[in-house]
Amino acid sequence: MADINTIATQFTDFYYSTFDTDRSGLKALYRDTSMLSFEGAAFQGASAIVEKLTSLPFQTVQHKVTTRDAQPSSTSIASLIVNVTGLLVVDGGENPMQFSQVFHLIPEGGSYYVFNDIFRLNYG
Amino acid sequence: MADINTIATQFTDFYYSTFDTDRSGLKALYRDTSMLSFEGAAFQGASAIVEKLTSLPFQTVQHKVTTRDAQPSSTSIASLIVNVTGLLVVDGGENPMQFSQVFHLIPEGGSYYVFNDIFRLNYG
Repeated sequence: MADINTIATQFTDFYYSTFDTDRSGLKALYRDTSMLSFEGAAFQGASAIVEKLTSLPFQTVQHKVTTRDAQPSSTSIASLIVNVTGLLVVDGGENPMQFSQVFHLIPEGGSYYVFNDIFRLNYG
Repeated sequence: MADINTIATQFTDFYYSTFDTDRSGLKALYRDTSMLSFEGAAFQGASAIVEKLTSLPFQTVQHKVTTRDAQPSSTSIASLIVNVTGLLVVDGGENPMQFSQVFHLIPEGGSYYVFNDIFRLNYG
């Protein structure tokens, strides 16, 4: 198995580049059991989650990752928790917003899907 | 079983009040398999984790929770992931720091222990 930090980097690079270029492509990363908490609102299942993400009211968005920390989340399967902090630039604005996001990734067929996803903007 | 948001609130209230009054008391919340990532540094096991937490170089600290989001982390056991964002006041300073912290809580004997703990300050 690849190093857990390598998996975290590869996953988050892919996730945010997909988010920032074609949000609908994120659907493949979720399953029916997947959960998203987005600014306190809860969604379950790939369709509901991607419907939420694709309906966010901005034209362009850019995630700039500052930190990513990964830990194995189980002693029995190769799942992992990744915590990301970073900056979000919306519609080319000059005041990036800080965010934090947690992913719980479950192995499946040589890859991973997102079981838990918790997103929060961090206000000063 | 209590509602997951109730568990998250009870746990984080207890965790931060213990952290802010007697850090050594946190040891009971971790096990030998527990992991802490603190500002990117990794620690494993209750002893190493609490040694890190009790050696942090401040006299007083106050955690002010802004948001807490909880999700079940498994379809088979009553574990949960809690993501917290908030403000940290160190030594009574006038400039609170933003933080985010993820806990992965595993049920044990009617209570929970911390399997994963990831802490990050969020810089603007």
